[in-house]
Amino acid sequence: MTVTRATCEALDAADPLAFARDRFVLPDGVIYLDGNSLGPLPRAAAPRIAEVIEREWGRHLITSWNLNGWIDLPAKVGAAIAPLIGAEGDEVIVTDSTSVNLFKCAAAVLRMKPGGAIVATRGDFPTDLHILQGLASLTGSELRFVEEDELVAAMTGASLVVLTHVHYRTGLIRDMAGLSAAARAAGARVVWDLSHSAGVVEVQLNGCEADFAVGCGYKFLNGGPGAPAFVFVPRRHQEAFHSPLTGWLGHADPFAFVDRFEPAQGVARALCGTPPILSLAALETGIATFEGISLAAVHAKARGLTSLFIELVEDHLGDAGFTLQSPRDSHLRGGQVSFAHEDGYAVVQAMIARGVIGDFRAPTTVRYGFAPLYVRYVDVWDAVRALVAVIQNGEHRGERYAARKAVT
Amino acid sequence: MTVTRATCEALDAADPLAFARDRFVLPDGVIYLDGNSLGPLPRAAAPRIAEVIEREWGRHLITSWNLNGWIDLPAKVGAAIAPLIGAEGDEVIVTDSTSVNLFKCAAAVLRMKPGGAIVATRGDFPTDLHILQGLASLTGSELRFVEEDELVAAMTGASLVVLTHVHYRTGLIRDMAGLSAAARAAGARVVWDLSHSAGVVEVQLNGCEADFAVGCGYKFLNGGPGAPAFVFVPRRHQEAFHSPLTGWLGHADPFAFVDRFEPAQGVARALCGTPPILSLAALETGIATFEGISLAAVHAKARGLTSLFIELVEDHLGDAGFTLQSPRDSHLRGGQVSFAHEDGYAVVQAMIARGVIGDFRAPTTVRYGFAPLYVRYVDVWDAVRALVAVIQNGEHRGERYAARKAVT
Repeated sequence: MTVTRATCEALDAADPLAFARDRFVLPDGVIYLDGNSLGPLPRAAAPRIAEVIEREWGRHLITSWNLNGWIDLPAKVGAAIAPLIGAEGDEVIVTDSTSVNLFKCAAAVLRMKPGGAIVATRGDFPTDLHILQGLASLTGSELRFVEEDELVAAMTGASLVVLTHVHYRTGLIRDMAGLSAAARAAGARVVWDLSHSAGVVEVQLNGCEADFAVGCGYKFLNGGPGAPAFVFVPRRHQEAFHSPLTGWLGHADPFAFVDRFEPAQGVARALCGTPPILSLAALETGIATFEGISLAAVHAKARGLTSLFIELVEDHLGDAGFTLQSPRDSHLRGGQVSFAHEDGYAVVQAMIARGVIGDFRAPTTVRYGFAPLYVRYVDVWDAVRALVAVIQNGEHRGERYAARKAVT
Repeated sequence: MTVTRATCEALDAADPLAFARDRFVLPDGVIYLDGNSLGPLPRAAAPRIAEVIEREWGRHLITSWNLNGWIDLPAKVGAAIAPLIGAEGDEVIVTDSTSVNLFKCAAAVLRMKPGGAIVATRGDFPTDLHILQGLASLTGSELRFVEEDELVAAMTGASLVVLTHVHYRTGLIRDMAGLSAAARAAGARVVWDLSHSAGVVEVQLNGCEADFAVGCGYKFLNGGPGAPAFVFVPRRHQEAFHSPLTGWLGHADPFAFVDRFEPAQGVARALCGTPPILSLAALETGIATFEGISLAAVHAKARGLTSLFIELVEDHLGDAGFTLQSPRDSHLRGGQVSFAHEDGYAVVQAMIARGVIGDFRAPTTVRYGFAPLYVRYVDVWDAVRALVAVIQNGEHRGERYAARKAVT
C-alpha cells in the first residue's frame, strides 16, 4: 500500500502518545526533528523558572537551599529519571555535565580495577573519547580505540570499557545486556553513555546488570540548553565507587566544613560542586513531560516514526544520493535516522530555511531525530515533502551554504 | 564620637555606590547580609531569563547556539568578569563549578611541574581541600596541609600551592603578590580561589603575577544559585595549560567531531561539557550589576561597612560572648565579618527570625557579609540593634534552634 498524508493522519489519530504534544510549547511553522540535540520547551518550564527566580531566589534568598529544597534537587530529579532508564531512585543523581560525569565514573572504575587498558570504539561520541584521553594522560593508563567488531576481543585485559548505548551518528542501539556480560566475563567494567537513548528507547540498566552510566539532560529528556547531566551508580557498586572529583557536595557531611573528605553514602558521593539551580529546575520540568508515559510506548512510536521516515525518503528520493547510515532493523535503531549525502551540510540548511530543523554531523551526515512525545506522523510526511522540494528545486546548491557550522 | 543611626544615614547619603542598590530586587523587611553565600536577584535577571526561555529556547530552539550566541556565552561572560579581577578579557572563561575548575587547574600545574607536593593550609575552603584529596589520590601526589605560618617554608619542594584569596571563615585577605612571588621563588605555582573575593575586594591577578585562579559566580558576583564558575589562565601559561577534563567544548574544533582531542587555543581549552545556559545567562546579569563601578570603590565601602559592624558589635555587645575571628585591620579584611559565639547557630537563626540573614559555620562562627552594591550603613546599624535585641531577650535560648543545618 502506498503511504499518503492521509495514512499519516490516521496513524496520528491512533497514536496513544498524541496527548503528550500539548506538554510542549512548539513554534508555529516549524517541524522540529532535533530533539536529539536539544529538546523543545516544556510548557511548565517558563512558569516554574519564573517562580524559582522571583519567589525562591528573589524573596527567600539563601534560605531556599533548605526552605525550597534546592539542596535535595539533584537527588530528587535523579530519582525522577531513574524509572526512565531501568534504575532505582537511589541509584541516579543529577550533577555536572555528561563529560565530567564520565570522567568520574571512568576514574572510579580504574580505581576498582587498576592496571588494565581503557577501551572505546572509534567514531563513538567525541566528548567521551576526548574525556578518556584526558584521563589516560593523567593516570598513565593505556587507551585503545578499536573497531566495533574488535570490541569483545579487546575487553580481555581491559579494566574499563566506555560505550554509548545509542550511537550519536547512526542511531544504532548497542546490546547492553550482551556487552555488559562480555565485559564482566573479561573482568572489565562498562560505563554506558545514555545521552542519545534516555527518554527515547527502553533502557533497562539493572535488567542488563549494567555497571555504570551517565547521560545528558537536554536531549530527549527536554531539560533545556546545557541542562545538568545524570550519573547512575547501582547499589552493588556504591560502596566501592570513588569519584576523583571530591567536591564538597559529595561529602558525607558537607555542612561540617571539615578539612578531610569523607564520601557520602550512596550515589550522592558522585556530587561535586554546587549545582546550577535554574538549569536543574528546568530539567525537572523536562523529566515531568514523561509523566504517566511508558518508555516501551515511546520506543514503539520511535520505531514507527523512524521506519516511516526511511521508507518515505527511499521511496520519494531513491536516486537523490541519500545513503542510509542507520540500522534498517528498527529494533536496532534509536530515535534518530541518519543519511549520508555529499551536500549534507547544505541540505540541512536548506531544510531549516523551510522550517524543518535537523542537524548535520561532519563530514556528510544528515541527521533527524524523532522524539515521540511531540513529533507526529504527519510531521514525518511533511518533512520528506520538504526534502523532495529542496532536492528538486536545487535549494541546497550554490554559495549560500558553503560555510559549515553545526552544534550538538 | 558616638555612632548613631543618624551617623549611618549620613554615611549612606554620601555613599558614591548608593545608586547600585536599585539594580537588585530586595524583599521588604529583610536585611540581607549573606551575599557572600548567595547574591540577591539582579533586577535584570527575571526578564532576561524569560527571554532566554521563551524566545531563544522556545522559539529558536537548537539554532540559538549560533543565532543567539549561546556558544559564545562562556567567553563573553568570562571577558566581563576579567576587569573585576585584574585580568585580560581573553584570560577568563566561565565553565563548570569552582570545585571542578580547581581540579582542572591543579592537575594542569602537576603536569607542568611533576613530582612535587601539593600544599594547602588547614581550615581553608573545604571544597578546595577535598578536591585536592581526590586529585592526590588519583595521581599519587603527596598532599600536605600546613598551618598559615608554615606556608612559605612548605613551598620548597612543592609543585602546587592552592590558596583562597579571601578566607571563607575569617575574611582574611591573603597577600597575593607576596605569596605568588614566594611560590615562584620556590619553583611552585599557585592556584588562587577567588570565591570570596571576586566582586568585593580589589583583585589584581596580573598585577600580582598570579599563576591561575578559579572563582564562584553566585556569591558577590550575584549570578544566582549554583551559577557556573570561572577560570583564569594568564596568556603566558595558556600554551602549557592542559586540563585533564578534555570535554568536547575545550576542543580546537568541537564541530569536527573527530576522535582525537586537540586543545583549543587560549583559555577556551579550560571548557569541558555543554554549559547550563539558563544559569549562565543569569550570571551575565549578575556581572552587569557591576557596570560602571570600580572595585576600588566597592572595596573601600566594604571596609567601611565591616569596620562599622565590628565597632558597633563591640560597643553594644562587648560582654555578650562575641569574639572577633576576622582581621581587625580593615585592609586585611574582605567583605565578611565573623565572630565566634558559643550559641552561634542559635544566634544566626534568631536573627533570621528577625529578618536579618547571615550564616553560621560550624562549630561556632557567626558570619555576616557586607556586599557594597546593596548593603547600606543603616542596615549595619539595624542589624546590630537586632542582635542586641536577640541577646537581651534571650531569643536564641531554648530548644527552638537545637538542630544544626547551614548552607554555603
